[in-house]
Amino acid sequence: MDLTRAAAEALDAADPLAGFRARFAGAGDDASDPTRPLYLDGNSLGRMPVETPAALARVVEEEWARGLVRSWSSWIGAATRVGDLLAEGVLGARPGEVLVADSTTVDLYKLLVAAADARPGRDVLVCVADDFPTDRYVVAGVAQARGMTVREVPADIDQGLDPAVLAAALDERVAVVVLSAVAYRSGALADVAAVTATAREAGGLVLWDLSHAAGAVPVDLTANGADLAVGCTYKYLNGGPGAPAFLYVRRELQEQLRQPIWGWFGQRDQFAMGPAYDPAPGIERFAVGTPPVLATVAVEVGARLVAEAGVERLAVKGRALGELVVALADAWLAPHGVALASPRDPARRGSHVTLAHPDAWQLTQALVDRGVVPDFRTPDRVRLGPAPLYTRFVDVWDAMDCFREVLASGAHEGYPTVRARVT
Amino acid sequence: MDLTRAAAEALDAADPLAGFRARFAGAGDDASDPTRPLYLDGNSLGRMPVETPAALARVVEEEWARGLVRSWSSWIGAATRVGDLLAEGVLGARPGEVLVADSTTVDLYKLLVAAADARPGRDVLVCVADDFPTDRYVVAGVAQARGMTVREVPADIDQGLDPAVLAAALDERVAVVVLSAVAYRSGALADVAAVTATAREAGGLVLWDLSHAAGAVPVDLTANGADLAVGCTYKYLNGGPGAPAFLYVRRELQEQLRQPIWGWFGQRDQFAMGPAYDPAPGIERFAVGTPPVLATVAVEVGARLVAEAGVERLAVKGRALGELVVALADAWLAPHGVALASPRDPARRGSHVTLAHPDAWQLTQALVDRGVVPDFRTPDRVRLGPAPLYTRFVDVWDAMDCFREVLASGAHEGYPTVRARVT
Repeated sequence: MDLTRAAAEALDAADPLAGFRARFAGAGDDASDPTRPLYLDGNSLGRMPVETPAALARVVEEEWARGLVRSWSSWIGAATRVGDLLAEGVLGARPGEVLVADSTTVDLYKLLVAAADARPGRDVLVCVADDFPTDRYVVAGVAQARGMTVREVPADIDQGLDPAVLAAALDERVAVVVLSAVAYRSGALADVAAVTATAREAGGLVLWDLSHAAGAVPVDLTANGADLAVGCTYKYLNGGPGAPAFLYVRRELQEQLRQPIWGWFGQRDQFAMGPAYDPAPGIERFAVGTPPVLATVAVEVGARLVAEAGVERLAVKGRALGELVVALADAWLAPHGVALASPRDPARRGSHVTLAHPDAWQLTQALVDRGVVPDFRTPDRVRLGPAPLYTRFVDVWDAMDCFREVLASGAHEGYPTVRARVT
Repeated sequence: MDLTRAAAEALDAADPLAGFRARFAGAGDDASDPTRPLYLDGNSLGRMPVETPAALARVVEEEWARGLVRSWSSWIGAATRVGDLLAEGVLGARPGEVLVADSTTVDLYKLLVAAADARPGRDVLVCVADDFPTDRYVVAGVAQARGMTVREVPADIDQGLDPAVLAAALDERVAVVVLSAVAYRSGALADVAAVTATAREAGGLVLWDLSHAAGAVPVDLTANGADLAVGCTYKYLNGGPGAPAFLYVRRELQEQLRQPIWGWFGQRDQFAMGPAYDPAPGIERFAVGTPPVLATVAVEVGARLVAEAGVERLAVKGRALGELVVALADAWLAPHGVALASPRDPARRGSHVTLAHPDAWQLTQALVDRGVVPDFRTPDRVRLGPAPLYTRFVDVWDAMDCFREVLASGAHEGYPTVRARVT
């Protein structure tokens, strides 16, 4: 691979998605230095679409301020309307299978309890070592409340889960497997179709966490036979900080499942306000309370951009950006003790790449101070997520160049070694 | 009572809260008729504070677009910062006792399960007939999942719960009582101190739903000895459609309680991302997933206005507005068959008044078409919620005048008698 900056510029010139960069605010808008920030943290919090402020203003200043309660006639459909947009444009699911609601954690809880209820007599929940904390904690909490056992499958912190190891952990006691399609730390990609099929053979259900996958790689839920999934909209879907999550339930399963938080927005004929809970037909039975209208509109804006770009094209570019990160890390950072902490095969990665170095936290601080924004993950990882929708190849080149300068100069050595509670 | 419009104007002239009206958008901004809409539905969705768009723009266009993930250093404190504002300015609670998080329904679920866990050996959950649907449904769902029994206490649909009837339903089997401080349909006010004390004597906990109370009447959680509460921020707190809810746990109880949805935002030392769930100290253990940043900022704006006005003053004005509704209904509407469906004693009401008429749904539609926005509640109720923060006495007078004209002319008779799913 040609590692010159000119080669990165040539990749940008040939990028069919290059035009999407201008549709995000904040890229190169720092007056003191228009090249900064170099944002490699789109897998933590995606950039703001240019259209988002106007969409929010319309909801707030027209629909809320003037329409007042009468605007519920349009708001009430937002959770399924944006759900359908995600289903068709991002997730490879069918209309009526996706709902925007609550947080990823609450949705995980709802679907995990519903799935466990749908497998009576089975007393084991499976999760994966080093999966995202909230996934493991939710599994532990549900298991404790129900007197079930957690079977934590080992996974390589850099290479991800070995499907054979998971298969060996599945038996007639397993009710549900919770697994991230893209591992949050390493970016390792799971095989959605194969894992779902293996679990189904054993009689269990898989609940996928798509937080680091949705908008980065095709998840093809229908084609892959997935039953259940949840995911985050503030990463590659650019829905904004704390934006509501989505949940997916395969159409054929919906009537069999009941989620545990019986709320009025999941009720059939909601405004009859009847005496007994009777879950709505379809995906709306997985709704709970009054939906977050403002935030859902912001999700819609972000999801539309991803759908327009197309997840296949985004995955191709994401892989190419990752390949550039890996090549430059090998060439420039490895001599300073930086090791690749993600699968080397790009077909086995999502859209982020993780590097390991004992001074990872100090390096992160030094990079942020120089206008390069990566993500630190404890204990010794620097995670680089160049979101393909708005990140240029030269951004990656410049960020890695800065990284090498920091390492070469030892500029990071003056920074605190212990992370404060909040960064 | 002097029922002339001039008398209403005199009440406005003497209103110490009159200045707050200008701090809400939408009042009289309909170019075709500056007197419309006459909004009597602030107890369903509060008006938009004038400051809200700028506060949202700051979060979106500065903190998100430019600060990106670095803005989490301020965002991460929002749930407790706004919680403290609500505690001190609205709820009569202490700092560290209130958290903004999730929806009212999800918060009800979390605290109900936590409370039931804290009363092992007790197998009954108490709710009140005709309480808001989501409250009754959550109780039913939790009871079913745990093999507990629901004891539904009868309550008069117009007069609310008789404390003696509740007391008779409490015994050593009761773990938790769920009860709205202000009944959603009738506006009947419960005695928070007396009910809490009665339940405590029987060894049970009360989980208050403050949705129709917060910002309308003083709830004085500390003074009244309340243990647990949840509530809505999009009604009298003017947080916007689907704004996140709040939850309250008395400080002395926090360490004894564990909520069932184990998420990473409730974890001690969250970013250590440790292997096992270990709930954070204090109110943050009741957090679950990534908090809704945009919506929480909107809640802050609304809550500040309520705190500035003062709940005592708001309650006084709310009661006076209600008295005008009742007096005009008696004088003008009763002859047309409209009956008061709220307690007649203003000390026993929150800030809304409900009227009953067989054609309630048709009347609601006719009023909306004439720029008067009340709320319909099945089967035959028109609910009038003149929020004291921005509603004038002449607004009430004009709305009731319109109501009487509709009844006198029979203008409502042409409207559909059956409500479509969404209004």
